[in-house]
Amino acid sequence: MTELICAVEAVDVRFPTSRELDGSDAMNPEPDYSAAYVTLRTSTGGAGHGLAFTVGRGNDVQVAAIKALAPLVVGLPVREVLADPGGFSRRLTDDSQLRWLGPHKGVVHMAAAAVVNAVWDLYAKREGKPVWRLLVELSPERLVDLVDFRYLQDALTRDEALGILRRAEPGRAERTRLLLERGYPAYTTTPGWLGYDDDKLVRLSKEAVADGFRQIKLKVGADPDEDLRRMRLAREAVGPDVRIAVDANQAWGVGQAIDRMRALAPFDPYWIEEPTSPDDVLGHAAIRRAIHPVKVATGEHVHNQVMFKQFLQAGALDVLQLDASRTAGVTENVAVLLLAAKFGVPVCPHAGGVGLCEMVQHLAMFDFVAVSGSTEGREIEYIDHLHEHFADPVRVRDGHYLAPTAPGLGAELLPDIVAAHRYPQGRVWSSQEPAA
Amino acid sequence: MTELICAVEAVDVRFPTSRELDGSDAMNPEPDYSAAYVTLRTSTGGAGHGLAFTVGRGNDVQVAAIKALAPLVVGLPVREVLADPGGFSRRLTDDSQLRWLGPHKGVVHMAAAAVVNAVWDLYAKREGKPVWRLLVELSPERLVDLVDFRYLQDALTRDEALGILRRAEPGRAERTRLLLERGYPAYTTTPGWLGYDDDKLVRLSKEAVADGFRQIKLKVGADPDEDLRRMRLAREAVGPDVRIAVDANQAWGVGQAIDRMRALAPFDPYWIEEPTSPDDVLGHAAIRRAIHPVKVATGEHVHNQVMFKQFLQAGALDVLQLDASRTAGVTENVAVLLLAAKFGVPVCPHAGGVGLCEMVQHLAMFDFVAVSGSTEGREIEYIDHLHEHFADPVRVRDGHYLAPTAPGLGAELLPDIVAAHRYPQGRVWSSQEPAA
Repeated sequence: MTELICAVEAVDVRFPTSRELDGSDAMNPEPDYSAAYVTLRTSTGGAGHGLAFTVGRGNDVQVAAIKALAPLVVGLPVREVLADPGGFSRRLTDDSQLRWLGPHKGVVHMAAAAVVNAVWDLYAKREGKPVWRLLVELSPERLVDLVDFRYLQDALTRDEALGILRRAEPGRAERTRLLLERGYPAYTTTPGWLGYDDDKLVRLSKEAVADGFRQIKLKVGADPDEDLRRMRLAREAVGPDVRIAVDANQAWGVGQAIDRMRALAPFDPYWIEEPTSPDDVLGHAAIRRAIHPVKVATGEHVHNQVMFKQFLQAGALDVLQLDASRTAGVTENVAVLLLAAKFGVPVCPHAGGVGLCEMVQHLAMFDFVAVSGSTEGREIEYIDHLHEHFADPVRVRDGHYLAPTAPGLGAELLPDIVAAHRYPQGRVWSSQEPAA
Repeated sequence: MTELICAVEAVDVRFPTSRELDGSDAMNPEPDYSAAYVTLRTSTGGAGHGLAFTVGRGNDVQVAAIKALAPLVVGLPVREVLADPGGFSRRLTDDSQLRWLGPHKGVVHMAAAAVVNAVWDLYAKREGKPVWRLLVELSPERLVDLVDFRYLQDALTRDEALGILRRAEPGRAERTRLLLERGYPAYTTTPGWLGYDDDKLVRLSKEAVADGFRQIKLKVGADPDEDLRRMRLAREAVGPDVRIAVDANQAWGVGQAIDRMRALAPFDPYWIEEPTSPDDVLGHAAIRRAIHPVKVATGEHVHNQVMFKQFLQAGALDVLQLDASRTAGVTENVAVLLLAAKFGVPVCPHAGGVGLCEMVQHLAMFDFVAVSGSTEGREIEYIDHLHEHFADPVRVRDGHYLAPTAPGLGAELLPDIVAAHRYPQGRVWSSQEPAA
């Protein structure tokens, strides 16, 4: 019997993070970190897990979008899907009727991401490898087959992509060894949420340094005097040698971003993240020119590879922050990593949320071993929330992510957690007791 | 008793257009033109109608997104909403949790459009005016209050927007008279669907000219030899003096678009519409430079004002094709019209679909009377499908849209039509008989 994909289940899972203001920033004052959680099942009992991260209201819409993709997936032979994950991704993102709802953006694209990532999880579990290692061990030709070059050719051709991967082949074994030995550098956003008071900000900043982090991140973008005061406190807490990135979460216009960053300059910010609308490629380029040498970082809301292509073409960012489920999952992120390598821009994935750390570490590690070949100027974001809910949580030691060794992508939630946080009927929501 | 908004109803309405290949193009081979149809009800029995247009699968997701907005709307006093439609729009587009699903793009943004347009319909009916006239009679200050300048200031300030509107004040009465007398120029896409055979293409092209249209549009982007052959047939059918626009519906990459348009050049195409990804501002700019004097047109999938701002800043288009429900409805479209006027780019709205002609005519007419002050290089798309299903269908005579005089925005469907086309339980779908 041919093994088929027999179900695509999507569950609305929400964590009541707004009760503690974890995750609070200029645009997200009270998020409830949530996941439209996908379980893809096969006719022989196999399963793969993926998710789309949201911040609360609307997670039900995200679930509805995943369910709308299910008819395109159920009934496909597993062997064919795993033999051509690029073709599978395009089947979801280029459906002639569903693509009208994007195209390649927003709810439908994040739905594709969740399903695509569930396929990668299944694939890696089948191969008995973590996804980073599965990707590292694919041939350059198979990796390039993942990429949809239709809209990329003016910036990256198939031959150029192959060239990037082939040039990285020689040192792969050595870099794999280094990765397993030392892990991958991380920075932490844990201290910097806008809803935390000064004492908590200072205490957590000092703890971050003590824990081995060389970079922290602070949320800015609400009251400008508050930004200055908090930046000063953080700088005093960590000293001159630890980098402080700031993150405005899209709060500013272009001119305003420039003014605000000039005001913060005395405290030596390392990068400004999401200074303005994530759609504003030209705006980011103008900000970058004006605030140099402070870096410009963005990506968590950059919705597809065509947008990343333009950010790179326009010289609009110094740091590319790919996201696990904003673009169409592992498959499209391979294209984004290749684009970044072509333009020589470091990738520092966006993480936090629900399961983002667990997923993006695979992409950064694959990048180090098989694409850019470097961790120079590269770090994965780390936030110490919600990891305990996952079957294979990230392990961060001395400011580094340890390379995962368990098979899969890492997005699998513990069944009890799913049951308790299911919205609105789960125990956490129906009883209004604090999250576990 | 204060009048409140008491319900936001959303219904999945689909028309089985794929049975006749109406609407078939390079990216949409078999669309079922659909609407997530909104009825906003007030506590005193008032109602406003809006819709988000989709092409079939996923219309249920669009409905779910509108329902997710309802809690932000139900219970608001009608008087407050109509006094500040700009604030109302921002309430929908900037909800701190829902905006994660965009931001300002895709399903959630189209949902906002449908609800915002229902409010404009209610407002205009309350005032006893068609929306175009309601807008024309608002003061420049009130119009500018509609605009969210947060991300626009580097291209258009409030003062500049006021200046544009004030400069257009002197001739408004005369232009209103002209509009009522002659209507607004239209072009027709009816002949050019990809699924039509040669005879139908030629016959409909000749009919279009006989009906007074000075421009037709042809779908291209599938087989290049077919494109050439159909373009030649159309040119022969309409003669040298009728403009032929071509529309690739995003089928090409940047270099490919340039090559294909050079091949079509001998047949004198007027504009190329959607040559590549609608997100690719820089790609459109490159195409435009390469194929001059053929014009570049886009907009039906340009998802918000930040994207339009960049298309204008980068000199990436000659013709801006705003859409009634892709950006956040009438409110955001006022901003788009002001941006276009600032940059001196003509607006030729996208129409067709379900109710798009009915809605966008108001925006073009408002533009003529009160913003750009001109119809030079400006036409509204016209497609002769599905109008009979509306309470106040468009009237097109001798290649012109006649100015609507009935109060409202025009998106109100006949109740019988809604019942029959409701998906999947309506008569048209449950019995699989052809559409009315």
